[in-house]
Amino acid sequence: MTHDAAAFQDFYPDDLAHCYGCGRLNANGHRIKTYWEGDETVTHFTPRPEHTAIPGYVYGGLLASLIDCHGTGTASAAAYRFRDREIGSEPPLRFVTASLQVDYLKPTPLGVSLEIRGRVEEIKEKKVVVNATVFANGEATAKGRIVAVLMPESMAPKVPGHGLRKAWKAARPGSA
Amino acid sequence: MTHDAAAFQDFYPDDLAHCYGCGRLNANGHRIKTYWEGDETVTHFTPRPEHTAIPGYVYGGLLASLIDCHGTGTASAAAYRFRDREIGSEPPLRFVTASLQVDYLKPTPLGVSLEIRGRVEEIKEKKVVVNATVFANGEATAKGRIVAVLMPESMAPKVPGHGLRKAWKAARPGSA
Repeated sequence: MTHDAAAFQDFYPDDLAHCYGCGRLNANGHRIKTYWEGDETVTHFTPRPEHTAIPGYVYGGLLASLIDCHGTGTASAAAYRFRDREIGSEPPLRFVTASLQVDYLKPTPLGVSLEIRGRVEEIKEKKVVVNATVFANGEATAKGRIVAVLMPESMAPKVPGHGLRKAWKAARPGSA
Repeated sequence: MTHDAAAFQDFYPDDLAHCYGCGRLNANGHRIKTYWEGDETVTHFTPRPEHTAIPGYVYGGLLASLIDCHGTGTASAAAYRFRDREIGSEPPLRFVTASLQVDYLKPTPLGVSLEIRGRVEEIKEKKVVVNATVFANGEATAKGRIVAVLMPESMAPKVPGHGLRKAWKAARPGSA
C-alpha cells in the first residue's frame, strides 16, 4: 500500500526530528514513516544487507528499534486523536520510550520489506501503551510492547532562540 | 579499563560473526566487545553523533541493541563456563535472543562512552537469562533483561562446504 498523506513523523517539529530511528532530518538514520490504517498504525521498512544477525536473518536490535519508533510515532498520533487536535498542531505532542519489550517469535528473513502494525492498548494524558507486531512475508516474526510517555520538558533541546521550550511550557504550565 | 585478552565476540566462528551489533566481520556494524570482570560482564561503547534520540541524548533503539548483543555475548561466555569448556572451542555455543526487555530510567547523554554491565540471572543447557545495566558518567540510565537461547541448528548458515552445520549436528544429535 502506498500513502499519499504525510507520515506521523513528518509532523515532528524540526528540533525533535533527529531521531536515528524516525527523524526525517537524520540523514544516517532509518527515517521510518508511520500511518493510520483505521485504528491500526503501519510502518514499512526494508532492512539493509548489513542489518544482519545470523546470515540470512534480520538483526534483533533493528527490530527492537523499529518497534520502538513505531511505538512512539503511534503514541504521538494517538495523543492528538485523544485530544481531538489536528496532528502536528502546537504545542507538539512528542513521546519518548519508558520501556520496551520484544518477543522474537521466529527468525525474520533478511531481504524483504517488513511490515510493523501497531495498536493502542492504553492511552492517558501523558502515557500511551502500544502493541506492535513485525510481519515478514505476511508472517508474524516478532511482537513488541512499548510504554511511551510524553517527552518531559527537561529533554527539550536547549538551543538559543528555540521555540519549543516555550511552547512546551505553555502547554504544561505545571512542569516548567 | 583496557583489556588485552580477546573479547567473547572474537571467538564467534566466522560464519556467525556478521551480526550488526557484535559481529567482528560486519564492517558497518557496532562490533561491540564484551569481557569478563569477575562474575560480571562489561562492554564499552561510544555512540556516534547520529545515534541521537532527542538532540543531546542517545537513541533508545541503540541502547536496546547494545543490551541485546551484550546479553547474547554474555550468554555464550557463560555457557562455556557452565560446561567447563574453553571459550571458542568446537562446537560453537552461539546464542540468539528470545526476548528483550528494556526500561529507560533517564535520558542517556550522547557524547560519552557508555558502560554496559551484565550478570547471569539464570543458566540452563539451552537458555541463559542476563540482566544488564547501561551506565553513562557512572549513572545507570537503562536496565535490560534478555532471554537468550542456544541458536537452533535450523538457523545455521546454509553455505556449501560450511562446517558449522556439521559441528552443530554433532553437538546436538537430537536436533538434526
